[in-house]
Amino acid sequence: MAALTELNKTGTVPAGTQRIVVSVDAMGGDLGPATVVAGLAMSARANPGIAFILHGDRAELDGLVAKHPELAGRCDVRHAEGVVTMDDKPAQVLRSGKNTSMWSAIDAVRDKEAEVCVSCGNTGALMVLSMMRLRKLPGINRPAIACYWPSTNPGGFNVMLDVGADVRADEMDLMQYALMGVSFARNSLGLARPRVGLLNVGTEDHKGRSEIKAAAELIQDAAESGTFEFIGNVEGSDIPSDKVDVVVTDGFTGNVALKTAEGTAHMFKGFLKAAFTATPLSRLAAMFASTSLKRLSARMDPRRVNGGVFLGLTGTVVKSHGSADPTGIAAAVQLAHDLARSGFNDKLAARVAYVPVARQDDADKDAEQDTASK
Amino acid sequence: MAALTELNKTGTVPAGTQRIVVSVDAMGGDLGPATVVAGLAMSARANPGIAFILHGDRAELDGLVAKHPELAGRCDVRHAEGVVTMDDKPAQVLRSGKNTSMWSAIDAVRDKEAEVCVSCGNTGALMVLSMMRLRKLPGINRPAIACYWPSTNPGGFNVMLDVGADVRADEMDLMQYALMGVSFARNSLGLARPRVGLLNVGTEDHKGRSEIKAAAELIQDAAESGTFEFIGNVEGSDIPSDKVDVVVTDGFTGNVALKTAEGTAHMFKGFLKAAFTATPLSRLAAMFASTSLKRLSARMDPRRVNGGVFLGLTGTVVKSHGSADPTGIAAAVQLAHDLARSGFNDKLAARVAYVPVARQDDADKDAEQDTASK
Repeated sequence: MAALTELNKTGTVPAGTQRIVVSVDAMGGDLGPATVVAGLAMSARANPGIAFILHGDRAELDGLVAKHPELAGRCDVRHAEGVVTMDDKPAQVLRSGKNTSMWSAIDAVRDKEAEVCVSCGNTGALMVLSMMRLRKLPGINRPAIACYWPSTNPGGFNVMLDVGADVRADEMDLMQYALMGVSFARNSLGLARPRVGLLNVGTEDHKGRSEIKAAAELIQDAAESGTFEFIGNVEGSDIPSDKVDVVVTDGFTGNVALKTAEGTAHMFKGFLKAAFTATPLSRLAAMFASTSLKRLSARMDPRRVNGGVFLGLTGTVVKSHGSADPTGIAAAVQLAHDLARSGFNDKLAARVAYVPVARQDDADKDAEQDTASK
Repeated sequence: MAALTELNKTGTVPAGTQRIVVSVDAMGGDLGPATVVAGLAMSARANPGIAFILHGDRAELDGLVAKHPELAGRCDVRHAEGVVTMDDKPAQVLRSGKNTSMWSAIDAVRDKEAEVCVSCGNTGALMVLSMMRLRKLPGINRPAIACYWPSTNPGGFNVMLDVGADVRADEMDLMQYALMGVSFARNSLGLARPRVGLLNVGTEDHKGRSEIKAAAELIQDAAESGTFEFIGNVEGSDIPSDKVDVVVTDGFTGNVALKTAEGTAHMFKGFLKAAFTATPLSRLAAMFASTSLKRLSARMDPRRVNGGVFLGLTGTVVKSHGSADPTGIAAAVQLAHDLARSGFNDKLAARVAYVPVARQDDADKDAEQDTASK
């Protein structure tokens, strides 16, 4: 509390605490702005140095912010009339979305008022707006969305990308994803020499699609820099394992894998609940096991890893699940905060600018304008 | 036991029991032929009318079969010198695999000595050998591997295909997969009017890859026959849900999704175990909860759904996981037995021969010879 009071009084953060400004799109999520603001309050309690620029309907947001004392003096509300809905086509939003909270939230990063942006709105629109307003880093052809994946590695998480920025990737894209993923893992998970795997349908070299075989050669060459190790093909069952740190795939496959895992987790949570409510004896057992069950339920909860990071842009954007509750929102904001604090994006820019061949955008691929949503 | 004795004495099955002959490749699995034979013994106990043709090294198999009294008089061993290994390339096996147990097992179906074949060996080789020796059904361009996926539907399972016959599928392939999946679900799950969904990265029509949008139109047209309902796009999290019965995708995506779910299940089984062994109190709770935990563990066990079915060939082939233990082998054999008894392949042949446009194989796609393994 002393830290918060300090911030409020002087507008500066307590000695030793870095001030991080997070730009937040309050609108467009399934559960509305009240949920977002509640999540910000949780985040404010946990991070003394955090402050927010919050975009959306001023009257509504002022009222919501006033309900949370932790946000007093730490939340700058910016009015925006429009909202990007989940059904809006990205191309439409590019043309006529200038007055939306999403556009405004991204622009705060563009104008360097905030280090990072968080939104739970339409992913496709968020990506195309971010690409247009924040620009791609030099050397990047295709930005990617990376996520943390619970794993049995010591740090508890692996990195997976692309999980939905695009629906196709050729060997050059996959190689760039590998480089971005390595930089992300080094800086946000503290892994000195991440192990990179290409997601495939078998571990043998001859398996799978031709662009994956070609990507394997490119990534193996890039591994000679020594900053990462390339372990070859990995299968879907290896994603949460301790044999790999960064899993590389195209956005369609990655998105399907991510949602499949979430659906499996959800089903098992249902099995867990059913197993312990089926009979009076099992309910009694649940009472004895309550601590264990709570711990287990928490470990199986997809909300605690809410948040995909857009890699390859000049600014950092974090995409929360559209249906996130306050706990999920706070998780996404924490991720954004920690990334901003690590300065990872500058280091990522340095790494990928080093890539020798930067191709022109493939005009056919852009004309297709396939986008994925999370 | 009376039923078995009857079979042994007269070589015919008890009245009312249908005799089903299953051709089994005993070699090529990770755990060797002893495991396969143990699985067959379990199956023989459960199915009075079942009989086997078992392919592999005669001396070894005779010895193994002799250890299981249930198999006496019900297991015809056929000698085969060669074994297809997991590293063998399918094209190689086509050229020089004639003396292998896998080839021999498939030929027993081709020669109509058995109704169905089961193997746990190299999936790619099994698929190309099956396509060559059993031929595709008229009207089928690309066979698919279908699997059962645990779900919250009343029957407990959904159907998913393709999970690894191939690595790419265009809109015509996807439409044929839908028709085959519908026939499979109608005949093996007893669903009068299955609901079909296309696996995609968002439910909105504009999302995802262009061939999926094109396939949606073709499938919608085919749904006018009334034998199934097309519900549009589904996401990875919908695969185990009760909103769909048959999920259609290309073999690369399907295989990744399947293995991702298995990896997630494996990780959660680990969490479950850890939760209940972490402290003395949790171990005590586990004792009280032991029935519930056993039930839960069984529900989360991927072995109970071991078995992928090759659809689109003139004979039925079931692929078991390479690493299956006797329980898994028995599950795959049970699936094979039940499929043979339902006569589903004749009905499937009737359904897909009805498809108006049978394309010539795409020479480029065959030249690529990408195959997936399970």
